[in-house]
Amino acid sequence: MKILSEKAALNLAAVRKKKPLIHNITNYVVMNYTANTLLAMGASPVMAHALNEVEEMVSFAGALVLNIGTLNNDWIASMIKAGKKASVSKIPIILDPVGAGATSLRTIAAKQIIQETRVSVIRGNASEILSLRRKDSKTKGVDSIHSVEAAVQPAKILAGELETVLAVTGPIDVVTDGQQQIRVSNGHALMGYVTGTGCAATATIGAFLSVDENPVSATATALAYFGWAGEVAAKNASAPGSFMIAMLDALYTITPEELKENCKFGD
Amino acid sequence: MKILSEKAALNLAAVRKKKPLIHNITNYVVMNYTANTLLAMGASPVMAHALNEVEEMVSFAGALVLNIGTLNNDWIASMIKAGKKASVSKIPIILDPVGAGATSLRTIAAKQIIQETRVSVIRGNASEILSLRRKDSKTKGVDSIHSVEAAVQPAKILAGELETVLAVTGPIDVVTDGQQQIRVSNGHALMGYVTGTGCAATATIGAFLSVDENPVSATATALAYFGWAGEVAAKNASAPGSFMIAMLDALYTITPEELKENCKFGD
Amino acid sequence: MKILSEKAALNLAAVRKKKPLIHNITNYVVMNYTANTLLAMGASPVMAHALNEVEEMVSFAGALVLNIGTLNNDWIASMIKAGKKASVSKIPIILDPVGAGATSLRTIAAKQIIQETRVSVIRGNASEILSLRRKDSKTKGVDSIHSVEAAVQPAKILAGELETVLAVTGPIDVVTDGQQQIRVSNGHALMGYVTGTGCAATATIGAFLSVDENPVSATATALAYFGWAGEVAAKNASAPGSFMIAMLDALYTITPEELKENCKFGD
Repeated sequence: MKILSEKAALNLAAVRKKKPLIHNITNYVVMNYTANTLLAMGASPVMAHALNEVEEMVSFAGALVLNIGTLNNDWIASMIKAGKKASVSKIPIILDPVGAGATSLRTIAAKQIIQETRVSVIRGNASEILSLRRKDSKTKGVDSIHSVEAAVQPAKILAGELETVLAVTGPIDVVTDGQQQIRVSNGHALMGYVTGTGCAATATIGAFLSVDENPVSATATALAYFGWAGEVAAKNASAPGSFMIAMLDALYTITPEELKENCKFGD
Repeated sequence: MKILSEKAALNLAAVRKKKPLIHNITNYVVMNYTANTLLAMGASPVMAHALNEVEEMVSFAGALVLNIGTLNNDWIASMIKAGKKASVSKIPIILDPVGAGATSLRTIAAKQIIQETRVSVIRGNASEILSLRRKDSKTKGVDSIHSVEAAVQPAKILAGELETVLAVTGPIDVVTDGQQQIRVSNGHALMGYVTGTGCAATATIGAFLSVDENPVSATATALAYFGWAGEVAAKNASAPGSFMIAMLDALYTITPEELKENCKFGD
Repeated sequence: MKILSEKAALNLAAVRKKKPLIHNITNYVVMNYTANTLLAMGASPVMAHALNEVEEMVSFAGALVLNIGTLNNDWIASMIKAGKKASVSKIPIILDPVGAGATSLRTIAAKQIIQETRVSVIRGNASEILSLRRKDSKTKGVDSIHSVEAAVQPAKILAGELETVLAVTGPIDVVTDGQQQIRVSNGHALMGYVTGTGCAATATIGAFLSVDENPVSATATALAYFGWAGEVAAKNASAPGSFMIAMLDALYTITPEELKENCKFGD
């Protein structure tokens, strides 16, 4: 796991150096926090969703982030159009299936995006990830009703079937491509009290995918970085408002060296 | 009023214990702050507005929050569809008529929602509440041009006519169901310098409605809690940016016991 | 330039006194921060974009802010409708051509707004401003790939052609109406790490336009005020999250007298 910690440092340094454009088609609730997360780490965010714009915008991008919160049919169409363009242009796509399992619209949309585009990574909570597999899975709103542990084995199987990397996040994150499996235990409980931390983690994976061709290491290192930012924030803040702000500060101030020392990876 | 202070403590404890899902169809400006407000107090927010999703989403919810800021026709249709479903399912609805009185679109939409769904509570500033009654009432944008005091008597009559609870908020809040009338004097002037504090107060009432069947006590106690959070925030912050963050912190750190001691209710 | 510094103080005092309603049709990412910026300085923000509402809303406004981030065709139509109404009603319009040059949709929309409405001021980064002139100009996302200096002469010519005031912002801002040229060197590098600071600067110009009939002085003084708020914020914050919040605080606490002493204008 020492190699992976070194990779985390390299990836963070590369994001800061290359300042990749990350194209986000994401939900209204988290757009601002996602953009600030990407800026704080040194990336260059853009939000664009118009059907007659997304192909052009994604063509400049280092990664495409698709997030199905506050979804409607127009946005699904734009996500698929942008995703198809990204797929043929070999631009990595990361999908955040917010609320999949809670409503048919979201579950079907997530599955459609997976089917019609080349998704490199899917990040969600246990319920969301499980909903991509089981027809009978039910989620309460956008919060998980399943534990990460309950999702590990099904996720491993599903990752193999979908030929993609799955990141099941929670108190401990699990990243798997169906064969490998990496646990990331960086993070802090206050992250669950700030809206959009999951979505911002997804965008962080997007930034790391733009500088690391291996989606497993890109995902695991991004989650370690984002989780470590939460731990750093918790040293300075003990309630959600100040914690949310301290996380943006931490994403900016954490050095690659410091990240390397603090990654918590396991099998 | 001691009973009401005790009820405030019970309601806050119940929200933290039950973590009710609060379904918000609200405006773009305040979505993030509203979600963070609900998370900070211990509730579980979800934002969903698609016509083909709202009925399914609201069916899991403890309350439905309808807010007509940044409105358009599609959103009105979704609000009414969700509201009708909530009405038949006995899920409490709270309406925030942002900018009613300022434009015909908003005034008509607010009245239509009131007519077609079973709204438990309406929270607005004096101008917004008055606009639901008088055709000639004019508001400047989304800020009130009427005093709370000027709205008390008309609100009492209107609440009776509409068979709903009205909360007219401002320096002092007045809650009435047409018969009872409760004043809540918790709050701080800096709340007027942060966008979405009114909308977040509405969402807070939504959370309290999900644990308290009496809409008068749910509304009054929610406003006392939200206002007290403003007072706590003002101890640590003297300008709007840090105040906005300190409010989220306060919503998280205030204990039921502390709330009980600090509610400011009157007739 | 001493007269201009005095004008800055007068404009800020006038905004706080008149509390002008500023109607924003702006992008999803920055709506919250823009509204908070306007509230913190003492103005009254409203966001409204529905085609069947914008004419009525803008008729009460002191200025109309059009911002083309997260654009689509419906929003373009609303911007033009609101802009036409503002034009005939002599309500000043300020345009923020976010991402113009990056995609055809945005470049064409910006040019269309300029052609069909009476825009008083356009604020953008160098790439965005240059894209309004040259067909071959290319921008990477929403961040500038041109220096302010490279844009000064073309901007001067373009301002004359369009008969509007152009503000090219970056490390140093340049304001020109084709004849006059004012440099504003207030500001701080951390502003580039917070999403929507450019858009919030545009809204600030909108507020100042509502109290100052001279678009050159309104624009230059607004940028000095906003930039000085950045400098004040940087005294209390050294990373983007806390800086973003400290800026809102500074916009609220800066006095007209303090602003007058700290404006950095040049030729």
